[in-house]
Amino acid sequence: MNRSSLGLRVPKGMRDLLPEEMAIQDELEAKVLSQFKLWAYQKVATPAFEYGACIQPDEEKEDDFYKFFDRQGHVLVLRPELTTPIARMVSSRLKGSELPLRLCYSADVFRLGMVRYQEFRQAGVELIGSNDPLADAEVIALAIESLRKIGIQDFQVNLGHMGIFSGIMDELEIDSQFRLKFQELLAHKDLVGIERMVEQSRFTDSVKKILSRIPHLHGKTEMLEEVLGWSQSPQLCEAVSSLRKVYEYLEDFNVQEYVALDLGILRGFSYYTGVIFEGYVREIGYPIVEGGRYDALYEEFGYPLPATGFAINLGALAERLNSSAKPCPEIFLYGENVSCVIQEVQKLRAQGVHAEMSLGSLSSTEAESLAQLKGIKEVKRV
Amino acid sequence: MNRSSLGLRVPKGMRDLLPEEMAIQDELEAKVLSQFKLWAYQKVATPAFEYGACIQPDEEKEDDFYKFFDRQGHVLVLRPELTTPIARMVSSRLKGSELPLRLCYSADVFRLGMVRYQEFRQAGVELIGSNDPLADAEVIALAIESLRKIGIQDFQVNLGHMGIFSGIMDELEIDSQFRLKFQELLAHKDLVGIERMVEQSRFTDSVKKILSRIPHLHGKTEMLEEVLGWSQSPQLCEAVSSLRKVYEYLEDFNVQEYVALDLGILRGFSYYTGVIFEGYVREIGYPIVEGGRYDALYEEFGYPLPATGFAINLGALAERLNSSAKPCPEIFLYGENVSCVIQEVQKLRAQGVHAEMSLGSLSSTEAESLAQLKGIKEVKRV
Repeated sequence: MNRSSLGLRVPKGMRDLLPEEMAIQDELEAKVLSQFKLWAYQKVATPAFEYGACIQPDEEKEDDFYKFFDRQGHVLVLRPELTTPIARMVSSRLKGSELPLRLCYSADVFRLGMVRYQEFRQAGVELIGSNDPLADAEVIALAIESLRKIGIQDFQVNLGHMGIFSGIMDELEIDSQFRLKFQELLAHKDLVGIERMVEQSRFTDSVKKILSRIPHLHGKTEMLEEVLGWSQSPQLCEAVSSLRKVYEYLEDFNVQEYVALDLGILRGFSYYTGVIFEGYVREIGYPIVEGGRYDALYEEFGYPLPATGFAINLGALAERLNSSAKPCPEIFLYGENVSCVIQEVQKLRAQGVHAEMSLGSLSSTEAESLAQLKGIKEVKRV
Repeated sequence: MNRSSLGLRVPKGMRDLLPEEMAIQDELEAKVLSQFKLWAYQKVATPAFEYGACIQPDEEKEDDFYKFFDRQGHVLVLRPELTTPIARMVSSRLKGSELPLRLCYSADVFRLGMVRYQEFRQAGVELIGSNDPLADAEVIALAIESLRKIGIQDFQVNLGHMGIFSGIMDELEIDSQFRLKFQELLAHKDLVGIERMVEQSRFTDSVKKILSRIPHLHGKTEMLEEVLGWSQSPQLCEAVSSLRKVYEYLEDFNVQEYVALDLGILRGFSYYTGVIFEGYVREIGYPIVEGGRYDALYEEFGYPLPATGFAINLGALAERLNSSAKPCPEIFLYGENVSCVIQEVQKLRAQGVHAEMSLGSLSSTEAESLAQLKGIKEVKRV
C-alpha cells in the first residue's frame, strides 16, 4: 500500500544512521566499551521501556518522556536514561551480588526535551555499593580516559557537589521558592538573571554578596576555603571534604588537568545526592558527559546502597566527528561463469578479505566503473 | 520516592540481560556482523520507532505492534522489523546510491505476539536493487554461513516461493476465502486441520488431491516436476525456474546440504513476493531466520526496486547457548596507600590488563576472599 507523505518520513526528533555515520558511532562505542571493560565494568542491558512506576513514581511531575500504555493500561516509558533501570535490575536479579558492583552499558535513550535528536546512544557505567570518594574519582577518571581514548582532547569536566549548594542555602535560610528559581537560573548559567534576582531580593547585603558569588565559584580548590568561611555546618564540611578528596585522587589518576571545580553546577535528574560532574566539548552547548553520586536511589527500590556513575552522549560525539571514508569492501569480483565467481569470492572471504560479487553479467568497463562509484579499489575478473 | 511493586518489575514480555547473558549475545552479534561485513554489507541504523503510516499504512489491519502517539497525535510504532524502515531510509536519504545496495543491521525489535520475549535482538541484511536469483542465493548462503560462524550446526533452512502457492491456487481457481483459511493452517503446519478442510470442501477429487499434497511438498527438487504437472501457467513456471536457480547456486556456495525445498511455507510479513525461506534449530519452535524476496515494497515508497534479505533472531539463539563463564577482570589490586594502588592499577590497564581496584581498605584475607567470590584469579597487594 503506497505510503502517505508522513509514512516516507523519519519521526520528528529521530534520525537514521547511514553507513558512514554508523561506522563512526560504532567505532566510538567499541573504544569506550573496551575502556569500561579494562576498568572491570561488566556490560548489561535493560529493556527499551520500563513501567512508569519505575522511572517516575511521582506521576505529578512534569517530564520529557515518551509514554504509552500496555494492554493492561499501565504507563510505559521509553528509557530516558539507564541509571534507574539498572537500579531496578540490581535490586532484583542481582540482589546479593558481591559489592562493589561495576556495571556498564551502551544503549539508546529517549528524551523529548533534547535539543537535537530525541533518541541518542548513551554509554555509561554504574559503580554500586561504595560511598568512598575513591569510587567517585574512579568513575570521573574513567569518563576522562574514555573521552581521550576516542581521540577527544578539547574537553573540560566541571566538578561540584549537591551538598554545597544546599548547605549554603540552609545556612543562609533561603526559602524554597527562591531556592528553586535560583537553582533554575544557575542550571542555565543565566548570570544576568541571577544578578537581577539577587538584587531584587529582600536579603541582607552579606547574603546577597554570597548568592552573587555562587555562579562564579569555578576553578581550583581555593574557593573551598571561601565557602567554609560562610558556614561550618556539618553538611557543608562533609561535602567540601569529600570533594577535596575526589579532586586529590584525580591527581593520582593523572587526569586532574581536565577537571575544574564548579560549585554552581546542578544536575537535571533528581536522584543525585553528592559529588556531581559534567563534561563539555567545544561546539556542543550541552554536557556530553553527565554523572555523579546518587546514594538514595537504591533505597527507593528496597535495597539501600550508595552508588555513583556517569553517561557519555556517544550520539552527539559521533555527530561532531568528521565523516570518515565510507566503509567499503576491498575487492569487486565479476565474470561470465557465475559458479566460478561464487567459488572465487568465497575463497577470498575465507581468507578474511571483504569481497563483493557482481549480480548479473557486466562488461569489464561496467565493472570498473561500478567499483569506482562504490569506492572499491580492486576489481577482478574471474 | 519508593517504588510500588510494579515499579520494581521489568515490563511484561521484556527482560534484562545480566553480564553473562549480555556477553553471549554480544559475542554472537559481533561474529554475525563481521560475517555480514565480509560479504560487503554496510551497517546502518533506524530509529526505535516509526510513524504508523510507514510501518502499517493499512490502519484497518490487525497487528501485534506496540503503538503510541506523538504530541501531534500521529501514531508511532516501535519497529517490529527493519526491512520497512530501511526501505523508507533508502527511498529518501540513500536514493540514487549505486545499486545493488547491500545493507545490514543489528537492533532490537518489538512484537506483542512473540511467544517468549516481546523485545529481541535481530541481525539482518537487505540486498536492494537486484532481481537476479543469485541475489537470493547470496543472502541465503550468508544466513547459513552466519549461523555456522556462531557455532550452530544443527539447523535447517526451508526454501519456498510465494508464487508457487498462489500459482497453484490461481490454476485451481480456489476462492480467496478458502485460500486465506488454507494459508493460515499451512503457516501453522496444521496437517490435521488441512486434511479436514480439504475433505469437507466441494472441490473435485483431483483438486482435493493437489491441495492435500501441498503441505507435504518438502525435500529436494523432484517435487518441482510434480508441481509443473499440475499447471504450466507463466507465474508458476517462473517461480519454479527461479527457485531451481537459487537452489543450484546454493550448491556453488557450498551450503545446499542445509537447505530443503518446502513449497508449503508462507511468511508472516505481507511484503514477500518471491523466494522465501526460514531457518530452524532444534529446541526452538519458531524460525530463528526469516527472509525472502520483496519486490513490491520499494514501489510503495515511490522508489521501485527489487530486494531480498533476511533477519536472524539473535536473542533466541543467545538464550539457547549455555551461559559461559561470567566475564570478569584478570587481577584485583588492593593496599594501604591509595595513591600507589591507583598508580599500579593504571599501569596495568595501560598494558591492556583488565584490572579491578579495591575501594576502601581490606585485609589480605578479605581481599583474597572478595576476589574469589568475584571470580578474579589474581590478587595483588600494592
